[in-house]
Amino acid sequence: MKSSGSANGRSAGEAVFDWVDRHARHRRDNGLRRVVEPRGSAEDVLDLASNDYLGFARHPAVVEAAAAAAHRWGTGSTGSRLVTGTTELHTTLEDELAGLYGAEAALVFSSGYTANLALVTTLTGADSTIVSDGGNHASLIDGCRLSRARVRVVPHADPGAVRNALEGSSPPHVVLSESVFSVDGDTAPLDELLAACREHGAALLVDDAHGLGVLGDGAGAFTAFGLGGAPDVLATATLSKALGAQGGAVLGPRRVVDHVAQAARTFVFDTGLAPPAAAAALAGVRLLREDPRRARRVQEVAHGLHAALTERGVPAGSPGAAVLGIPAGSPDTAVTWARSCLERGVRVGCFRPPSVPDGESRLRLTARADLEERDIQRVVRVLTAGG
Amino acid sequence: MKSSGSANGRSAGEAVFDWVDRHARHRRDNGLRRVVEPRGSAEDVLDLASNDYLGFARHPAVVEAAAAAAHRWGTGSTGSRLVTGTTELHTTLEDELAGLYGAEAALVFSSGYTANLALVTTLTGADSTIVSDGGNHASLIDGCRLSRARVRVVPHADPGAVRNALEGSSPPHVVLSESVFSVDGDTAPLDELLAACREHGAALLVDDAHGLGVLGDGAGAFTAFGLGGAPDVLATATLSKALGAQGGAVLGPRRVVDHVAQAARTFVFDTGLAPPAAAAALAGVRLLREDPRRARRVQEVAHGLHAALTERGVPAGSPGAAVLGIPAGSPDTAVTWARSCLERGVRVGCFRPPSVPDGESRLRLTARADLEERDIQRVVRVLTAGG
Ligand SMILES: Cc1ncc(COP(=O)(O)O)c(C=O)c1O
Ligand SMILES: Cc1ncc(COP(=O)(O)O)c(C=O)c1O
Repeated sequence: MKSSGSANGRSAGEAVFDWVDRHARHRRDNGLRRVVEPRGSAEDVLDLASNDYLGFARHPAVVEAAAAAAHRWGTGSTGSRLVTGTTELHTTLEDELAGLYGAEAALVFSSGYTANLALVTTLTGADSTIVSDGGNHASLIDGCRLSRARVRVVPHADPGAVRNALEGSSPPHVVLSESVFSVDGDTAPLDELLAACREHGAALLVDDAHGLGVLGDGAGAFTAFGLGGAPDVLATATLSKALGAQGGAVLGPRRVVDHVAQAARTFVFDTGLAPPAAAAALAGVRLLREDPRRARRVQEVAHGLHAALTERGVPAGSPGAAVLGIPAGSPDTAVTWARSCLERGVRVGCFRPPSVPDGESRLRLTARADLEERDIQRVVRVLTAGG
Repeated sequence: MKSSGSANGRSAGEAVFDWVDRHARHRRDNGLRRVVEPRGSAEDVLDLASNDYLGFARHPAVVEAAAAAAHRWGTGSTGSRLVTGTTELHTTLEDELAGLYGAEAALVFSSGYTANLALVTTLTGADSTIVSDGGNHASLIDGCRLSRARVRVVPHADPGAVRNALEGSSPPHVVLSESVFSVDGDTAPLDELLAACREHGAALLVDDAHGLGVLGDGAGAFTAFGLGGAPDVLATATLSKALGAQGGAVLGPRRVVDHVAQAARTFVFDTGLAPPAAAAALAGVRLLREDPRRARRVQEVAHGLHAALTERGVPAGSPGAAVLGIPAGSPDTAVTWARSCLERGVRVGCFRPPSVPDGESRLRLTARADLEERDIQRVVRVLTAGG
């Protein structure tokens, strides 16, 4: 095997990736370096950074269901959903998810990310136009990039801009939006988007990652906006946030969901969701149906946090569901602020470019059903204690 | 909300997805419709369709580890790996995976699919050329599509063609190949590919999905081909096949893996792998290190199957690891053949377009460490019993 030496005495092989050092330097110089920091299993911090809004990831019924599934079904699904990767557990989860949404059918994926890739790539073609909200999640944007459609990015949460874009295109076209935006936590104007879609014969595709478990008494955006039986609306859900597990799902009319199952590369060519995650999500769906109070409590806590923060002059965005965004200036300010909160026992999310646009670094707080009034007061104290 | 009626009395909304019916008809007429068929938890069939080569998905140590992790860490990781989604379990898994591969570092993803998207998109840019094997997996192809690089697809397993493509391009360029091809089961000429890469200053990216657990006494392609410490080679592994869990990993030099962690959208914007899957994979890695005999046995079984089948005139491809491909003519013939095997108690995989090129439908058999000589004889009898 020939390995040509280079001038400085290193092998040619070593120089191949020298370019990554440049990127590393740029990140370091601009406060953009991320650290992967492991947490322990029993931390003594108040968690306002995770998406485990309802505490399901540690709920005894959910944990037991996952453990039992490992024993009964094994730890992996062992193949593509079309080969050996579909168990009766998967189809039960799909039936109950569809029931929760009031949709005809659901299809489960190994992640919300791959569900979104499937949604966008299979429901658009080279002759399609996608009208995509400027605030959409990376997985939706990657779906647009993988599709062969024309993509028109419109200003965030602006139904007028969506209407204009639809007027300037012709079917097949689709409108693509999150229900609750993942960083800022605002709700999309789904009523108006649907009206615009129907005027122009467009389909509406909704990523309900942060709606499920919170909106519609926990049943998600379809219930909150009355979209359950709509023939022209599809949603994706993630099983990794309020449901406390892992995975994703596409929900909607049966014939369309069936098309997704036939055509989606991230369904056909990906190993099915692991049984413990499927079982955890199923247990979560059942908890949601049994008791809508958790979902209501999350919204109460989110509004309580918002009121208390704004009262103290912290410019938190108004939460549509469980998520609150707080502008934080420069990347360094954001990091310092988040770190000082953690030192005081409160974990919050910290978003810097490229996760958010330049100059829009921010903290991200998530409400949890189990937070009490004194927790809210503590969060406000910690956040306003100064960096 | 305006909902304009259409000529035939249906709402405009209902017509929006009429186009999927055309696709459904085409699939039905051409024998290309897939059925999602759930399996029960205690089937009485001989499984030669799954990727659970070593039986780890039901190994007591693996199952116990997953169940214990659900209790200790919860059923979900609750956030992005950069926020709350990294536990000490994840970093231990990364350390031990890196150890198994002899690589400096490993980074764990929620699936092999998303690990491959990360690998290809973060290690190439708009000025790169990707030289990609014509037989590569959908996830690698999607990675190429998401990258902004120029992609040159070369004939399958043809180092001469790779060399030509590298001669016709300039750095930064990368060569992209599976170690063991997922459908036909042949091994890539990694030695020759690396030599070609080094002659031209290119990086080698290897998808070891079907190598891990089988090649290199179970340690995968890096051990089999002596690539562990190479500064210019990266691999992806899946945790969903021989390890019996779910998830994926990128492995290689630390500075490069760190770059992937900083830049990969499917790492930064995806929920971390669920703890039960991470724990199952970790238990699997430990089993692999303890006992190389399972990996050797899989290869013995694969070769035994191949010998017995070709002796009976079944044109099975020579297995590089655990996978055997068998040409099966038309889609209908393939489906009928696979179904008749299942009726006789043997489950095999069945691949039709678009999973394989037109006219190349085939059966796919996977060897398992727990198959005995009489199982092999039974498989051969069932496969040659006629459709
Ligand atoms: C809006 C949105 N969509 C999709 C995803 C991806 O879901 P998952 O993490 O389950 O892959 C996320 C978060 O990760 C998200 O915030
Ligand atoms: C070669 C290859 N790469 C990647 C993948 C994707 O891995 P995963 O199923 O873990 O997402 C698969 C199979 O699904 C595969 O066969």
